[in-house]
Amino acid sequence: MSDKVRIALDAMGGDHGPSVILPGADIALMRHPDVEFLLFGDTAQLNPVLDGLPRLKAASKVTHTDVAIRMDDKPSQALRYGRWKSSMWLTLDAVKKGEADVAVSAGNTGALMAMSRFNLKMLEGIERPAIAALWPTLKGESIVLDVGASIGADESHLINLAAMGSAMARVLFDIERPTVGLLNIGVEEVKGLEQVREAGRILRETPSLDFDYHGFVEGDDIGKGVVDVVVTEGFAGNIALKTAEGTAHQLASYLRAAMNRTWASRLGYLFARAAFQALREKMDPRKANGGVFLGLNGIVIKSHGGADAEGTAAAIDMGYDMVRYKLLAKIGQSMERDLQARSAQIATGAAS
Amino acid sequence: MSDKVRIALDAMGGDHGPSVILPGADIALMRHPDVEFLLFGDTAQLNPVLDGLPRLKAASKVTHTDVAIRMDDKPSQALRYGRWKSSMWLTLDAVKKGEADVAVSAGNTGALMAMSRFNLKMLEGIERPAIAALWPTLKGESIVLDVGASIGADESHLINLAAMGSAMARVLFDIERPTVGLLNIGVEEVKGLEQVREAGRILRETPSLDFDYHGFVEGDDIGKGVVDVVVTEGFAGNIALKTAEGTAHQLASYLRAAMNRTWASRLGYLFARAAFQALREKMDPRKANGGVFLGLNGIVIKSHGGADAEGTAAAIDMGYDMVRYKLLAKIGQSMERDLQARSAQIATGAAS
Repeated sequence: MSDKVRIALDAMGGDHGPSVILPGADIALMRHPDVEFLLFGDTAQLNPVLDGLPRLKAASKVTHTDVAIRMDDKPSQALRYGRWKSSMWLTLDAVKKGEADVAVSAGNTGALMAMSRFNLKMLEGIERPAIAALWPTLKGESIVLDVGASIGADESHLINLAAMGSAMARVLFDIERPTVGLLNIGVEEVKGLEQVREAGRILRETPSLDFDYHGFVEGDDIGKGVVDVVVTEGFAGNIALKTAEGTAHQLASYLRAAMNRTWASRLGYLFARAAFQALREKMDPRKANGGVFLGLNGIVIKSHGGADAEGTAAAIDMGYDMVRYKLLAKIGQSMERDLQARSAQIATGAAS
Repeated sequence: MSDKVRIALDAMGGDHGPSVILPGADIALMRHPDVEFLLFGDTAQLNPVLDGLPRLKAASKVTHTDVAIRMDDKPSQALRYGRWKSSMWLTLDAVKKGEADVAVSAGNTGALMAMSRFNLKMLEGIERPAIAALWPTLKGESIVLDVGASIGADESHLINLAAMGSAMARVLFDIERPTVGLLNIGVEEVKGLEQVREAGRILRETPSLDFDYHGFVEGDDIGKGVVDVVVTEGFAGNIALKTAEGTAHQLASYLRAAMNRTWASRLGYLFARAAFQALREKMDPRKANGGVFLGLNGIVIKSHGGADAEGTAAAIDMGYDMVRYKLLAKIGQSMERDLQARSAQIATGAAS
């Protein structure tokens, strides 16, 4: 790795393309002047925007391609026409070739995941990728994974998720031993999915984990920030994430309606304007933008397709932190340090 | 059914017992003077409370038992010591014997479900029970099921859930053809769990359903009120429900902190007090208290263990509505009217 953090950016991804992605990159660059961008996309669209952003232009290298993955294509379609030549593929390929330290794209999730697996391949010891999300909590932030990369998970995948998520927590939250909980229904040992119970047993009985296994957590424990890392399979994780987003929108809408009800409430709103502004910032989903693809030979950040420039910058910031604090190396260490102990533990469980 | 709605009430259930349950019953009775209560519990604890509630006392028949199910017992333990004689069992038994039209308990969910199955048995054609929850939405309310009675669901169980949930929507929301969505990740036909996709195919292709099948919905569609009935298996459903509760608490806590920040925000709060009060009422989880056990030969309402008197009254109200608007008969009709068409459809799918 050079002294600079080299970020490969799919300039064509997302609902808005370069007109939003590039201003987002410019915001991130202001916060991290040690970033170098490799931009991939249609120069006919990129260059006019870039000309208005001289700072970004000076820190970027543009590679032209006129193939862009559409937001609603199936992964198989995207692979067919976009492999080798789309902006998404080239962005990932820069990581693969060691020219960039991290890839960021706001493109279609399924296609990005398919191309990531195809190009970067899985890490040794990991069979399936995961998407990790940052989740704002009453205590700060937690990491929740998997939020939709794959459906269903056996105990060994859940344990891999715990290892990868805690490596990410170590990087992002700067804590030596993150706490990890398994998402389940009911906290009693007898309840819930069998694979989750079995993963819990193994984690409880494994010595020398490099994180603290907390036990089961329920849906309402996520927002409380009971643990640093919440582990779940992708179906339930995706539903939890979207349900929380939906509930936040719903309550914000109730609040707006309530503040508009009477002259007194409108007056009250005026007085409390700064407080509402602070609340809005606290609830701002753009701040937590960026799902991290874990389990691959390379770091890939998925920015939200509808993200604006601020949201794009947050996704790039996250990629930056992952590189600066050596996420991949830490995941590798975790996997190496613990996998053998865990395999032994799984074998013990199977034999008993 | 007599002219009265006869409600069997487990007076010992929940975290607080008779001191909260009975005042709750009294509130419900005020709203529905045509209710008759069968109360089950320890008269040494019941009678002093009842003496202070003369209206309730006059409308109630008390049956003494000194066995009460503890909140943290496993279902098997509860069955062992509580069958035949606990207040929970006797409450259910009143429905079984036709002495009551509905059973309400705030006791331990697992024990209540186990005893309900054991005593009331499943409805013809239904193999597994479900818990349905009322979910406040931007448009009003929706029904979400299953929120935790069982884990996993094949396509035929998902279709049963759709039939039962839509019967409940017909009763509670007074709409002839409720809309039904299957909870999934990604709305594209190719995504998500295979059983969910298969259930979607069957519902799409089945003529003469007595509800309108909408298609897939995602977690954030629940709070928008996109459909009247959201169908999911119990693991994801429970996690969605608890995550939404957790998010609501989290945002309420952010809001309180924001309103306390400065003198201006506190002043603003004073002006907008009525609006905040309205908001609080809108978000009041007590109003949606009461999970409905579906699929049994009898209606059982599970009130939240921590519910206060107002919450208890809401659960009783729900039981009242279920009886007055003939939920069980409507579920029976739905099942009969549609099961044959659906079986034919499933067979077609299997043959093709």
